[in-house]
Amino acid sequence: MDRYLSGPQLARLVAIDPGARPYYRALAEAVRSLVLDGLLPVRVRLPAERHLAEALGVSRTTVTAAYDRLRERGYLESRQGAGSWTALPDAGSLGAENPWIAAADDGLLPLHSAAPLAASTLPAAIAFAGEHYPRHMLGPGYDPAGIAPLRQAIADRYTTRGLATRPEQILVTAGAQHAIHLLTTMLLPAGAPILLESPTYPHAIDAARLRDARIVSVGVPDDGWHLDLLTSAMRQSAARLAYVVPDFQNPTGHLMDDATRAGLVGAARKYDTTLIVDESWSELAIDEVPRVAPPAAFDTDGRVICVGSASKLWWGGLRIGWIRAGAALVRRLAVLRAAVDIASSLFEQLVVTRLFEDIEETRAERRRTLGASRAALVAGLAEHMPDWSFTVPRGGGSLWVRLPGPSGTALADAAACHGVRLAPGTWFGVDGTLEGRVRLPFTQPPQVLTEAVSRIAEARVRGPYGTRPAPPLTPAL
Amino acid sequence: MDRYLSGPQLARLVAIDPGARPYYRALAEAVRSLVLDGLLPVRVRLPAERHLAEALGVSRTTVTAAYDRLRERGYLESRQGAGSWTALPDAGSLGAENPWIAAADDGLLPLHSAAPLAASTLPAAIAFAGEHYPRHMLGPGYDPAGIAPLRQAIADRYTTRGLATRPEQILVTAGAQHAIHLLTTMLLPAGAPILLESPTYPHAIDAARLRDARIVSVGVPDDGWHLDLLTSAMRQSAARLAYVVPDFQNPTGHLMDDATRAGLVGAARKYDTTLIVDESWSELAIDEVPRVAPPAAFDTDGRVICVGSASKLWWGGLRIGWIRAGAALVRRLAVLRAAVDIASSLFEQLVVTRLFEDIEETRAERRRTLGASRAALVAGLAEHMPDWSFTVPRGGGSLWVRLPGPSGTALADAAACHGVRLAPGTWFGVDGTLEGRVRLPFTQPPQVLTEAVSRIAEARVRGPYGTRPAPPLTPAL
Repeated sequence: MDRYLSGPQLARLVAIDPGARPYYRALAEAVRSLVLDGLLPVRVRLPAERHLAEALGVSRTTVTAAYDRLRERGYLESRQGAGSWTALPDAGSLGAENPWIAAADDGLLPLHSAAPLAASTLPAAIAFAGEHYPRHMLGPGYDPAGIAPLRQAIADRYTTRGLATRPEQILVTAGAQHAIHLLTTMLLPAGAPILLESPTYPHAIDAARLRDARIVSVGVPDDGWHLDLLTSAMRQSAARLAYVVPDFQNPTGHLMDDATRAGLVGAARKYDTTLIVDESWSELAIDEVPRVAPPAAFDTDGRVICVGSASKLWWGGLRIGWIRAGAALVRRLAVLRAAVDIASSLFEQLVVTRLFEDIEETRAERRRTLGASRAALVAGLAEHMPDWSFTVPRGGGSLWVRLPGPSGTALADAAACHGVRLAPGTWFGVDGTLEGRVRLPFTQPPQVLTEAVSRIAEARVRGPYGTRPAPPLTPAL
Repeated sequence: MDRYLSGPQLARLVAIDPGARPYYRALAEAVRSLVLDGLLPVRVRLPAERHLAEALGVSRTTVTAAYDRLRERGYLESRQGAGSWTALPDAGSLGAENPWIAAADDGLLPLHSAAPLAASTLPAAIAFAGEHYPRHMLGPGYDPAGIAPLRQAIADRYTTRGLATRPEQILVTAGAQHAIHLLTTMLLPAGAPILLESPTYPHAIDAARLRDARIVSVGVPDDGWHLDLLTSAMRQSAARLAYVVPDFQNPTGHLMDDATRAGLVGAARKYDTTLIVDESWSELAIDEVPRVAPPAAFDTDGRVICVGSASKLWWGGLRIGWIRAGAALVRRLAVLRAAVDIASSLFEQLVVTRLFEDIEETRAERRRTLGASRAALVAGLAEHMPDWSFTVPRGGGSLWVRLPGPSGTALADAAACHGVRLAPGTWFGVDGTLEGRVRLPFTQPPQVLTEAVSRIAEARVRGPYGTRPAPPLTPAL
């Protein structure tokens, strides 16, 4: 530990508004921001608590509380006798500030999550399940592959979309993430390479990390996938597994064209890679889009596995998703499932079976509501954040915003102080990159998004806890 | 490959009733039984198909079909040019004959599963959830740790049982197996030792195998746990994790006494082992039993983790279980969960919240129904299988039956041909032992059990496909 700061040095750097309350949190936030902004390097020893307390003119208890908070969140490490020094939370660690376990009722607008509200057909489907489940109550209730009517409904939907599918090819899961977890558990040897898009769905990164995978990123540029990048990443990494989101990619919203789909599957065949194709957003076009084939339609030797979900089309509170694969693999996955969680909720399987009957009605509803929300978000950003840039996607649920600087984490932090939970770009990458991005979902109603944008604008000006004034966004008129 | 059999030799051994249909299945069954009974050792080369066909006087196609079936089920291996030799299915492999993925509607009585039918309070609870879930539809529906009212209800129940518990100590899961999977994923390093009872819950073995664990068994003798066996297994194995079922152990039905509980937790402390205590059956006493404390009541340093489930008390089709642990561990588990399946079904969480309100009513119902079923099973066995022995447990859901010989697998096989799916003892052990046992659940209604016992009795006499006559069970009068 060569580098250190004295109490007065750190006190000068943090520059806290003395009126900030609670003071210890403002102090912790200030130190954290210094670390994240690179103004306070990692592994610099901080002053002893009593020295910083003196320099700031506060009680030692206050500094102790601030240091505790920093330690808890991974920005400070301490050892008896050696003092405390700055740190970065381990990206793979299960940190205390993970937003996924935040209380849902803390009053923050949940813009960290791209989860639409429940579709209007849900109550009728729940009533249907309430009527029909009693005959299923006569059995033990366990069906690891899923109940027959739901497997049939899912298979029929694939067939309608142009991909002939038998019910034996369908495994019902407890959501798309559960499907990804089962597939990586079965198909990804511990420590093996997996190809992920950058940016990608954060929980897919989690699933890969659970396997101690070597994550190989392939960038998805602003104009969408480049087939040569995908192909050379496959060739160079020798990854046997790749995870892609070709339909309204999360978070970018890109839609992969047919030529790239065909090329991707061809490359997978050439380099012996199995593709996990996450189609969670497939049914959620907003604008007229060219008709594209499911990537599995280009599959000739069983290397394309599809993952789907009820979460985005109907509701995330329904924990139902599915896998489409060869019937033999589906059987093996069903057996694996017995070791993971036995089976899916029988009641919810009945609900989703019913929901499939009115799928076109729900798609039309989503086109209307997501379209209106997208318009409100775009309008709010145009008004308040003219220096943010993005491409408006033709479907899906989010804008992938480029900020004027590498400030995504600081922005999310400030926004949380102003009542909005945000997803900074770093969540969608594997190596702390994407700091200059933020994902803004348009899955909430327009009025929520309008309010959220105005709060975010305030957060930009006032900073966390109102302690760091920023220059005005536009010249004063 | 030194050993081989000629066509006529094998034809003499198999001794098939020529009227058996389909013949190829009878032939495959006969070979499989020879292997399982040790009459045909593993890695013995079988005659070429045409030689066996000649010796049996059947078509070569028939023998080909039988060999295919044996290969499919893991009892035969073949290599081009080297022929085919006998084998045993890999115990850890995901075999094609796994009963967990059998179709629920194949007409077999499901005695492989110890899952009670749905409790009578379920319809009212579903109606309650139907009324109250709409206000939850306003959110994204994701709550990885579980909704607050359910965490409170579960915590309150522990407190009532004598174990003061805060909601922050509860993680709602998608059933007990999901809880076990999360815990082994987080707490069991790949390849590390884990202590399991023998016999134990089969899916706990599955969960350990998913971690490539070194499974250390500790026997549960006919008179229950021996504390010195548990203690020395902990000391000798250096296992950091142990999984025990102290309440109406599955499958033996034993109830651990307080002294053993205290000693077990003390040993865990001494040898630095974390205990996963599966209390899935805790609420299901049938007879008056001595009041025992939850093992966690003896815990002084946070090394006892409780797992519970709605499956046995209410219904397995509800995929809701829980973990009780320290609040910090619960937070880490909730974050891990985001990588596994995000969250539990919101609707079912409301259902179970409501079910807790009438828990004593349900317990009384289960005492009556499980008691009646247990009586019917015991009576049926006394009548038809006087040479089977067992201790009648004072609660839980199954008899752990000792057969007159090592014939559990053969019995299960024969029973399947006569319309009953059974759980042979080997499912509950880790190394192919327990062949002289079978678990008979009394979770089905009395009339189902009476019919099942009579079919099993017939299966004993007639064997699989009616091809192997057995001696009468009792002297003819």
